[in-house]
Amino acid sequence: MVLRIGVIGGGQLARMMIAPAVELGIDLRVLAEAEGMSAQLAATAVGDYRDLDTVRAFAQDVDVITFDHEHVPQEVLRALVSEGVAVHPGPDALRFAQDKLEMRERLAELGVPQPDWARVTGIDDLQAFLDDHGGRGVVKTPRGGYDGKGVRVVGAATEASDWFERADGEALLVEELVAFRRELAQQIARRPSGQMVAYPVVETVQRDGVCAEVFAPAPGAGERLVQVAEGIGRRIAEGLGVTGMLAVELFETDDERILVNELAMRPHNSGHWSQDGAVTGQFEQHLRAVADLPLGDASPSAAWATMVNILGGPLDGTFESRFDAAMSAHPDAKIHIYGKDARPGRKVGHINVSGDDLDDIVYTARAVAAHFD
Amino acid sequence: MVLRIGVIGGGQLARMMIAPAVELGIDLRVLAEAEGMSAQLAATAVGDYRDLDTVRAFAQDVDVITFDHEHVPQEVLRALVSEGVAVHPGPDALRFAQDKLEMRERLAELGVPQPDWARVTGIDDLQAFLDDHGGRGVVKTPRGGYDGKGVRVVGAATEASDWFERADGEALLVEELVAFRRELAQQIARRPSGQMVAYPVVETVQRDGVCAEVFAPAPGAGERLVQVAEGIGRRIAEGLGVTGMLAVELFETDDERILVNELAMRPHNSGHWSQDGAVTGQFEQHLRAVADLPLGDASPSAAWATMVNILGGPLDGTFESRFDAAMSAHPDAKIHIYGKDARPGRKVGHINVSGDDLDDIVYTARAVAAHFD
Repeated sequence: MVLRIGVIGGGQLARMMIAPAVELGIDLRVLAEAEGMSAQLAATAVGDYRDLDTVRAFAQDVDVITFDHEHVPQEVLRALVSEGVAVHPGPDALRFAQDKLEMRERLAELGVPQPDWARVTGIDDLQAFLDDHGGRGVVKTPRGGYDGKGVRVVGAATEASDWFERADGEALLVEELVAFRRELAQQIARRPSGQMVAYPVVETVQRDGVCAEVFAPAPGAGERLVQVAEGIGRRIAEGLGVTGMLAVELFETDDERILVNELAMRPHNSGHWSQDGAVTGQFEQHLRAVADLPLGDASPSAAWATMVNILGGPLDGTFESRFDAAMSAHPDAKIHIYGKDARPGRKVGHINVSGDDLDDIVYTARAVAAHFD
Repeated sequence: MVLRIGVIGGGQLARMMIAPAVELGIDLRVLAEAEGMSAQLAATAVGDYRDLDTVRAFAQDVDVITFDHEHVPQEVLRALVSEGVAVHPGPDALRFAQDKLEMRERLAELGVPQPDWARVTGIDDLQAFLDDHGGRGVVKTPRGGYDGKGVRVVGAATEASDWFERADGEALLVEELVAFRRELAQQIARRPSGQMVAYPVVETVQRDGVCAEVFAPAPGAGERLVQVAEGIGRRIAEGLGVTGMLAVELFETDDERILVNELAMRPHNSGHWSQDGAVTGQFEQHLRAVADLPLGDASPSAAWATMVNILGGPLDGTFESRFDAAMSAHPDAKIHIYGKDARPGRKVGHINVSGDDLDDIVYTARAVAAHFD
């Protein structure tokens, strides 16, 4: 019997699980939202992940269910689990990735360092928080945001009036506007049986709320930073019962504190470097973790690795027409293309480069990405 | 328009092209011999590669045709080329991989060092050759042999009587029995436009005519050996007009000469280490070469890499049941499983390990492979 792993969602994260699945001899099956999605090659079903019957039918033919995204509703997940389906990460963990207010509350219970935050249900609540935090703050919709959507920096509570109206009585999350020197990310893999493996903490550069570049490991990260970041990651993975890959986005503050910004319970953009820069890439690791197989070595395979995203632009022509110039100038770059239509700002691929000199590889990765942007 | 590459043959070499194709955003399509082949995931057609209509129909939907094996008949290949299909490697190159007598003749013209050989059509011819070469020799059927099949060491011409009978007047090839200290392999990638890239020469260990282990680069290989092996590879790739990956199997003789043993015009078992041990693995390189894209960096990404084949055995149980023990003890091993039924002696997977210490990685790779054999 071949091991069968079912992935709900047909985006690029599911697509990037195909290569390690083929290598390991795992039968990867994808429930895609539509025909022609990024993970089309492995799609064995097309349907609505919010529909229990659709998901249930898909789950019948696999040994474990995992995800390309965190949007499958709790009621669908809980129904599967109650019917004996192995779901990783499970609903009890995923709810903390689905709802930022629940996440903040749970991290507070765990004593994990995070920005000041509050649950606010109206303008007055919010203004009180802002008044206590220098007059500014970050308002977030607890559910459904990604890549900067559902996040707004405000200087007055009235700037969130429309969101309160739309929330219709539901609470919003407000967080202090953290003065950070840079952003980091810590990835942890965790199996159902409890084994954990930590990737090195990396530096991430966001532009317009979207991850643009990653440097691995985080430049200048001393022993203290590495230990603190890994410790936070392990505490969250264990405390929230995460199975599979966990990404913890972190602020490194101007006064050198490490605070948790966001969580993702799946392979994450901050870990794409590991496909070509670590002994075990995050997509293979995720498959091993959700199948409860022993985890792979997460060590870097070179001194430095970097990842630069390709964001779709208004340029004419196809990706393929750009291969020639990019590959010719930079034979050491690893080009990853997601098979998605290019739209301005949309993540449509990324470039990985590894080597001994960080400046060199970052130059290379940016140069190659520029051919495709 | 996405680049579409068609592979004739659905074996493990086609399968191992899937991962780099998905990464590069290439649409890989396979013409498989049957349902359920190793490369099933990418199979878009099932049929007989000896049938022109089948191959022609498959070729209509792709930008370039390449191969999992070298068995597509010349007349089929030539018909495609005459109809304007891009075929790489093309029939003019492939015939030297399809017929060992043609190969020996052409290498002699190119002045490439090789064992003494002769075209023999009967017992008397053969005995004369043996008498001139210490009474022993290696008889080979010019066509159709692989993995030790179609190769016989003889001490008297009469030991090949059955082959002469079956050959029905066609010539056989006889070669001197080379006293070699070890076997090596040199891989070269070559584009239609002429660009070539050389992989480091590797040591290969054969057992029962089948590649068992590979050490990359070849231990103790000094500058002279590296230059000689690469020079031979480049001369053959250019002289035979090879496009795609070329593997040249070499003898390193007791008196330190380098002689060409066999050729393969496709990704080759001796290059599987490069999937995890080189900046650009041979399967990605093959896709780039046949699509006439700039070639990737073929440098090793670690000091040493090794590959140990998994040969199917009579053991009970599934591969997956062995994952646990293998992965648990050796988190740094890269496990490659081909999705084929295990039969004794059949190649069903391989293990790659890279690192700073050759003894360590060979120990690891053998230990992991032993879980699956």
